[in-house]
Amino acid sequence: MIISMHKYDLDTPCLVLDVDVLEGNIMRMQTMARAAQKELRPHAKTHKCSAIARRQIGAGAVGVCAAKISEAEGLVAGGVTGVLITGPIATPRKIERLMSLLKKDPTLMVVIDDQENAVKLNDSLRQRGLSLDVLVDIDVGLKRSGVAPEKAMELAGVISGCPSLRLRGIQAYAGQVQHIKSFDERRKKSLACMERAAEVFGQVTEAGFPCDVFTGGGTGTHDIDLSVPWLTDLQVGSYVVMDAEYMAIGCARNPDKFDVFTPSLTLLSSVVSANQNSFVTVDAGLKTLYRDGAHPVVLKPCEKGFTYEWFGDEYGMIRYPEGTDHPRPGNVIELVVSHCDPTINLFDQFYVISKDRVIDVWPIDLRGKSQ
Amino acid sequence: MIISMHKYDLDTPCLVLDVDVLEGNIMRMQTMARAAQKELRPHAKTHKCSAIARRQIGAGAVGVCAAKISEAEGLVAGGVTGVLITGPIATPRKIERLMSLLKKDPTLMVVIDDQENAVKLNDSLRQRGLSLDVLVDIDVGLKRSGVAPEKAMELAGVISGCPSLRLRGIQAYAGQVQHIKSFDERRKKSLACMERAAEVFGQVTEAGFPCDVFTGGGTGTHDIDLSVPWLTDLQVGSYVVMDAEYMAIGCARNPDKFDVFTPSLTLLSSVVSANQNSFVTVDAGLKTLYRDGAHPVVLKPCEKGFTYEWFGDEYGMIRYPEGTDHPRPGNVIELVVSHCDPTINLFDQFYVISKDRVIDVWPIDLRGKSQ
Repeated sequence: MIISMHKYDLDTPCLVLDVDVLEGNIMRMQTMARAAQKELRPHAKTHKCSAIARRQIGAGAVGVCAAKISEAEGLVAGGVTGVLITGPIATPRKIERLMSLLKKDPTLMVVIDDQENAVKLNDSLRQRGLSLDVLVDIDVGLKRSGVAPEKAMELAGVISGCPSLRLRGIQAYAGQVQHIKSFDERRKKSLACMERAAEVFGQVTEAGFPCDVFTGGGTGTHDIDLSVPWLTDLQVGSYVVMDAEYMAIGCARNPDKFDVFTPSLTLLSSVVSANQNSFVTVDAGLKTLYRDGAHPVVLKPCEKGFTYEWFGDEYGMIRYPEGTDHPRPGNVIELVVSHCDPTINLFDQFYVISKDRVIDVWPIDLRGKSQ
Repeated sequence: MIISMHKYDLDTPCLVLDVDVLEGNIMRMQTMARAAQKELRPHAKTHKCSAIARRQIGAGAVGVCAAKISEAEGLVAGGVTGVLITGPIATPRKIERLMSLLKKDPTLMVVIDDQENAVKLNDSLRQRGLSLDVLVDIDVGLKRSGVAPEKAMELAGVISGCPSLRLRGIQAYAGQVQHIKSFDERRKKSLACMERAAEVFGQVTEAGFPCDVFTGGGTGTHDIDLSVPWLTDLQVGSYVVMDAEYMAIGCARNPDKFDVFTPSLTLLSSVVSANQNSFVTVDAGLKTLYRDGAHPVVLKPCEKGFTYEWFGDEYGMIRYPEGTDHPRPGNVIELVVSHCDPTINLFDQFYVISKDRVIDVWPIDLRGKSQ
């Protein structure tokens, strides 16, 4: 029986989620947003879990974001409405899937960064007698998707000429600034990006387009985004679980550690081989701890100086400091994951814990939904 | 209807597997092994697919390898017998799972690299009236698991004193040499490792231990391993699907390209945003194309000079050479994946194709089996 088991008795490798810390993170972000009179539209691409999305909405989020149509399908199947798909729906098969999903859930919203795409979406909608809320995706320097700010008005004009599309506003995501270590530098660069988007939002609304959504921002800039004029809601993702990559940047009150939010997610791994002098081999490697972002942080054993290194597809190397006991096969290691999003996507479930005991198992129901 | 669809009409991102190329790779390796009077014991950790394991056995493989007990469970459920688990079964929960699986399939074999582990396995087996084939895992320089060669005889002695364990031989895997670019350097280093293991095998058999298995080697050293004395079988994995990381090393006949095997696996991705001058954004990123090994190789468009760069969790950047047509949203890109093992583990199925048309869908039934 898994329920009531101590987390260190779980089979490994596995992901555990401390629900008290998770809810603390959800409430902290929601409270900060409310105080600034902004909304939250948290990104489900991070946690890939309808159960977490429902909690975020329950705490007051205006909706959630999905990166792909398949994630949106999973969220809708999981009872979540008000989903914004943050990347263009650009291929014929994806447009087909969007049409099918829209019939189930008319609250969907998508972004557009291409005039031809606007026309194609409009045609598909019209043929089916449907209509769709859309945002103009503005490129504020990441160059991944979005139109240049100076071309946004033209695209807004094309969209507003499409009777099956309802222009609701704009999206701007400055992904390139989220992990800048210095808070001051991050603040300066992020504001430069987001204020450019705010100008566009001003132009679009002044031109008479009836826009009520200006969405963007992320965990690394959340407290900076809250001061951006006209920004209506924040697409924060990682704050809810956290990871080593975000822990390593500074925040307003601490230049060395982003300690506004606490890691609610950890990975448990076991020692499987211990024949070397200064390190042991554990059962978590590339396939359970995505090699990206920052090095995982060892929480248990809690003595300082334990470090994790990737050691192939299935294994990791735990180096331990001189003078500490040599770990033995079967010993459990607890780690803060390197980069939360792609690591969560490697697992089928979270073991949900409270006070170190398992109280529930939540399916990672959007895992592998990459289309 | 998916069957008979052209591969470029499939929704993306997705993995496609050319079954004719796959079978060519399987036959080529089997033929080479047979000519050298060696066996194959291909590693299923690469393809994570019982359907491929069954084909490898059908072509003559003596068994297959699994990295974890959960993979072995999946293989047994998929009708595959003769599974060797290549990493130590070191924790109480894993030993429990091994005992359960052994009741279903007595042909299982495991490795041991620790005396205490031998005793624990023996105790668990005795309590249940079971017995188990085991190999001594020899560390030939990777330092990830295995005992030092000079301690192998002592461990063999402990194992032979355990009545529920049947010592069958040794395992030696020189993972650290598989991707050395120069064939001659790889040959030299690999032979030094494997000849050390062969010495151990000689000692163990001379001492009267009834050993008939000396397993090891990999795709990068397959033709070198075939000359190692006493080596009975090769744990080759990647050869069956190939990847960009292996393509980039040299082989005996070509110093710049490992062209003994042909990539049977490719990833299809679509352009989703095309607002920049020298690159476009595609729908495959960290979550579908594992960032490890080598850069993915662009096969379609087939003009030279197209390159792939990771561009976040969900996206990639395709740079294209001046003078070629600017790709448009919806255009399909075909890539050889960076590192096959962790990339396959991100997907639930292979679209199996022959002459570019889908003829079947094979579940990646060991996907996510990391325990």
